[in-house]
Amino acid sequence: MAVGAPPDLSQLPAVAGFETAATHCGIKKNGALDLLLARMAADTAVAGVFTNNRVVAAPVTLCRDHLANERAGALLVNSGNANACTGPQGMLNALSNARAVADLLEIPDGAVFLSSTGVIAEPLPAQKINDALPGLRDALAPGKWEAAARAIATTDTFPKGGARHVEIDGAPVTLVGIAKGSGMIHPDMATMLGYIFTDAFIAPRALQTLLERANGVSFNCISVDGDTSTNDTCMLFASGQAEHALIEDPDDPRAAAFAHALESLAKELAQWIVRDGEGASKFLTLRVTGAPDDAGAKQVAMSVARSSLVKTACAGSDPNWGRIIAAVGYAGVPFDPDATTIHLGEALIVERGGRAASYTEEMGQAVMKRDEIEISIDLGSGDGRAEVWSCDLTHEYVSINADYRT
Amino acid sequence: MAVGAPPDLSQLPAVAGFETAATHCGIKKNGALDLLLARMAADTAVAGVFTNNRVVAAPVTLCRDHLANERAGALLVNSGNANACTGPQGMLNALSNARAVADLLEIPDGAVFLSSTGVIAEPLPAQKINDALPGLRDALAPGKWEAAARAIATTDTFPKGGARHVEIDGAPVTLVGIAKGSGMIHPDMATMLGYIFTDAFIAPRALQTLLERANGVSFNCISVDGDTSTNDTCMLFASGQAEHALIEDPDDPRAAAFAHALESLAKELAQWIVRDGEGASKFLTLRVTGAPDDAGAKQVAMSVARSSLVKTACAGSDPNWGRIIAAVGYAGVPFDPDATTIHLGEALIVERGGRAASYTEEMGQAVMKRDEIEISIDLGSGDGRAEVWSCDLTHEYVSINADYRT
Repeated sequence: MAVGAPPDLSQLPAVAGFETAATHCGIKKNGALDLLLARMAADTAVAGVFTNNRVVAAPVTLCRDHLANERAGALLVNSGNANACTGPQGMLNALSNARAVADLLEIPDGAVFLSSTGVIAEPLPAQKINDALPGLRDALAPGKWEAAARAIATTDTFPKGGARHVEIDGAPVTLVGIAKGSGMIHPDMATMLGYIFTDAFIAPRALQTLLERANGVSFNCISVDGDTSTNDTCMLFASGQAEHALIEDPDDPRAAAFAHALESLAKELAQWIVRDGEGASKFLTLRVTGAPDDAGAKQVAMSVARSSLVKTACAGSDPNWGRIIAAVGYAGVPFDPDATTIHLGEALIVERGGRAASYTEEMGQAVMKRDEIEISIDLGSGDGRAEVWSCDLTHEYVSINADYRT
Repeated sequence: MAVGAPPDLSQLPAVAGFETAATHCGIKKNGALDLLLARMAADTAVAGVFTNNRVVAAPVTLCRDHLANERAGALLVNSGNANACTGPQGMLNALSNARAVADLLEIPDGAVFLSSTGVIAEPLPAQKINDALPGLRDALAPGKWEAAARAIATTDTFPKGGARHVEIDGAPVTLVGIAKGSGMIHPDMATMLGYIFTDAFIAPRALQTLLERANGVSFNCISVDGDTSTNDTCMLFASGQAEHALIEDPDDPRAAAFAHALESLAKELAQWIVRDGEGASKFLTLRVTGAPDDAGAKQVAMSVARSSLVKTACAGSDPNWGRIIAAVGYAGVPFDPDATTIHLGEALIVERGGRAASYTEEMGQAVMKRDEIEISIDLGSGDGRAEVWSCDLTHEYVSINADYRT
């Protein structure tokens, strides 16, 4: 299942400075693509945000280390195995893959970034990956984003990606992003795997700030099942091949359009993940206004986004809004229930802590039957606001997760 | 569904100072019992703990007010309607019910305690309740606990109750508890409805302390679906009719056996709720040791107890322990993954951050196939410990909650 039509990745443009290749190296059982190699122009700037889970996969630890170098030469991503909870051997395997990529492409080990996604706690078949690398190098080519997106997918039902075109100082700049994720999705810093490639010429520290800002209103605003992965990674690579002068300050006015496009692309990718949430049949938008501050608004929105009872009510097209206000109530944010209003789509359902006089069950039902449901909550207690995205909780979710490994 | 054999309430003993009666007053559709009245001896001491949800049902507000009087004369509980999110009319309805009980039993309004449980946000049919009161009064009798437990149930599949006998200063003392709850179960202060009746002679403030301590290791240690109700209530009534001198200090050595029995009974009731968790097919015990402190241990245990991925893995008898360690990792408690060990039942599965050398998939599978699964996590980072209880997440849970009101 997935909510709405999936994106068309066949038309995503090439981005100057990036080539990719994808193959089946033997991790996934069904012959599907499971390994992505991306080669980048020399001096490509890199930024990254990673899971806040205290248990982190070996490749995340490696990426955090390499990020200090501020430059990337290659990205290698395998799917089907997360290389998480794999002990010291997991890190040796990651280092072995990074070394093999570095040798093959003649770049420093510290310029190689790795991700793994899939089953936790199985030993990574590092040799299978290394054996596939020469073939991948020979196949490197620009613009092959659809295969790249397929190669990083696990329980995803469609490949996810998008593009933006902006100008910096009159020079055309392109951004292309790919992402994967369908389960174990609940943001904490970054969630899932996402990679954005651009030819903009931006210094690494400015790039990091721009990525963190975009991440805060995109990947960190989604929940599928409330579980934060051990492997969440979002990286931004900038080859610097666009024809504009270097941007060193994230607040440089010349970067404003880029920042906006980056945020917009990150939101699109994040929403694709929710639309393809495991078992999802409905896409939920939770808008909170009138909170004491933005952080409080997000906390309330995520509380509703995570509620199993709200999510099952959406699955059943049941306008059981008492569950919504209950989830608002236990979010831990101070507010006045009597000042709160809640809209389900365009229907006012709650005012002054009780059912709105104008509300009828039919109005609520009409909204809940839709594939895309908007829940707007005004707490009447300040200027804080947030928007987050979630999906419903269905039988299909249980089927997928009660039987994932077998 | 429910895990294990339900309790037999037909043998629960009478408790001196308490009479109950139950009836169908017309709230539930199928003619089932939906109203409980309990009458108590004069000067019965009362203690209570209530939901921390910021949105609270009218009867919870009323109980909090009346608790200041420290004495109870009656308890009235309806099921089928929660009288929550019902605005000012909800409180007027609660006051009307309290007044009617007070008039009928010739006690002060402030000695009446009320609870409501069921659908949120529907107007309470207060008149139906008041009309049923005279008949209930005429039927009051001691020891009718099974009917009482049935009358407070909603999606419960069996009535829940238990008893303990102890001595205080050589005098026999009886405790009987009843409880309900199956969904919207996630502790915050108290969870669900639970009532414990005893003939012990204990002053209200000491009783309150004893209840809070017992609650912290029982009702506050369970999760079915992560949703904290607007109506959670646990109350303890002590008629003082046992033949011992007044206990005024909760740490009085004479009260130790009572405190232990109270904790044990509260744990039993809490575990009945989990065993009857909506859609539950397995009962999970999560034990955490070696945390920085007890609060941290409980936070880690509840993180695992709440994880949709752990709960679906249990439903599928899948020893997917990577999900367990991931949920430990995002609990927000500092610990050293490399010092952590995890047992699934008797099988050591994780040591030093990775799969234990001795572990085999067959060992894990053998444990996961059981109806009762124990997960023991030692963080190796301190002396903090906690034990909490949860259940699996099944298709049946989705069926129940996608279609609760229709």
